[in-house]
Amino acid sequence: MTRQLVAVVGRGVVPSGHPIATADDQGLVRGDGCFDAMRILAVDGAAVVENLDAHLARFAASARTLELTFDEATWRELIGQAAAAWTTPPPEAVLKLVQTRGPESTPGQVTGFLTVTELDLDAMREARAGISVRTLDRGYRSDGFADAPWLLGGTKLVSYAVNSAAKRAAARQGDDDALFVSTDGFALEGPTAAVLMLRDGALSTPLPGPSGILDSVTVRQIFAEAGAFGVGCEYRPIPVAELFTADVVWLASSIRGVCPIRRLDGRDLTVDEAWAARVAAWGGF
Amino acid sequence: MTRQLVAVVGRGVVPSGHPIATADDQGLVRGDGCFDAMRILAVDGAAVVENLDAHLARFAASARTLELTFDEATWRELIGQAAAAWTTPPPEAVLKLVQTRGPESTPGQVTGFLTVTELDLDAMREARAGISVRTLDRGYRSDGFADAPWLLGGTKLVSYAVNSAAKRAAARQGDDDALFVSTDGFALEGPTAAVLMLRDGALSTPLPGPSGILDSVTVRQIFAEAGAFGVGCEYRPIPVAELFTADVVWLASSIRGVCPIRRLDGRDLTVDEAWAARVAAWGGF
Repeated sequence: MTRQLVAVVGRGVVPSGHPIATADDQGLVRGDGCFDAMRILAVDGAAVVENLDAHLARFAASARTLELTFDEATWRELIGQAAAAWTTPPPEAVLKLVQTRGPESTPGQVTGFLTVTELDLDAMREARAGISVRTLDRGYRSDGFADAPWLLGGTKLVSYAVNSAAKRAAARQGDDDALFVSTDGFALEGPTAAVLMLRDGALSTPLPGPSGILDSVTVRQIFAEAGAFGVGCEYRPIPVAELFTADVVWLASSIRGVCPIRRLDGRDLTVDEAWAARVAAWGGF
Repeated sequence: MTRQLVAVVGRGVVPSGHPIATADDQGLVRGDGCFDAMRILAVDGAAVVENLDAHLARFAASARTLELTFDEATWRELIGQAAAAWTTPPPEAVLKLVQTRGPESTPGQVTGFLTVTELDLDAMREARAGISVRTLDRGYRSDGFADAPWLLGGTKLVSYAVNSAAKRAAARQGDDDALFVSTDGFALEGPTAAVLMLRDGALSTPLPGPSGILDSVTVRQIFAEAGAFGVGCEYRPIPVAELFTADVVWLASSIRGVCPIRRLDGRDLTVDEAWAARVAAWGGF
């Protein structure tokens, strides 16, 4: 049985497996809410949250886009309680923060909760060694979100059904994950990960903003580290065709890590192993 | 206080306001589930569900698209229990059925529940008399879902955050509702309603399927009634520009009803009142 801890804003740690959301919670019936996720590592026997500030800032930005009230101090307190209660922590766990618009019957009263769930390290290690990926059309142009704030681009929504369906579609073709591409032929992001490319000794990733993709905490961290080593780092549109001639392509995320793509649409990709290890380390993996 | 009844698959009617979903329910944390909604009317003091078969069939189709197990008999039994418990029914209520992929910790065990909620008749009557609507870009082409089943077109998902955001965006401009349009200039649907047009004595509505829009139970019912009266009814692409020269344009849905659009993007639309009343009646309103 996977260990899980649950804590609810206003209540603190509650027994995991007990219901916490009502039947009229707008997160449950309309996917109207946001989340963020990060690792909790065991450091000298204590639970340490990785990149908490960056994830909390992104979580707050998602809430703002949804016009939800957001109280950072409350979240920090709840996370502190959860970390303290996460005793004898396993090497890696995932901390997920969720805030929804709350019950329809109590307008303005948001629902907030978090879960801490032990990670399957074997599965993580396998993915971090390399994955096979299938490109899937996302249906949007690469600039489709530029003048359409109601499309909620760049927001980590709990409205994630298409992301889950894309992962199932990729799995049906025997692949580990999907990579969304725009109708005009650019790489966007995975359902739960950013795409990152090494080419001619420089790193690049698609630009958030008009593309609607999420601003990746992991990629920001890698760029900060890489920049300190003088490695060129660029946010720019990446035509899908470029991926097939890159030196390394990764799907990068805070939980599963910095995973080199070894096969894309059934074609083997080059993986420069030295660079793969270097970039993974910069990402904290 | 609005009356609400809640019933859960496997448990029956439960106290409303009590939590029913766990923190790892994939409906709650990933919008991974589907729903359907219909009216419950008071007929001679008894609660009668309107168009139950059609809504259950669409609900089942949504579940199938999500690859969720679906047990129609279980749902019919739960709905029967809820209708029996909905004593001294108000004139109109909404019955919402929700099924999610269930808790992550118990793979394959879906979550199912329903709510019955009294409708605000004053607000309904006002909307049924006429609404003002704002067109909003949906970011997709009118055929964007043709070869992309992972985009879950035509599925009534609980991943509804963009629909809710579109309603807020329309309200900010002083309008009652939004009408999504495709990047290639065709009318698609409202966030929670189909669009229907009368022109030269014939009815038309956009075609579900490649457009990704929902197959409207209300429009199907109107077409069946209208057809019996010899009125032409057609599913076809509708350029947005056509709406401005139509005899009536409606947003039609099972709960709010068949609402003539009186203003679209700040321009007054013609409403042939005799036709508006006739079509509303065909839709059951």
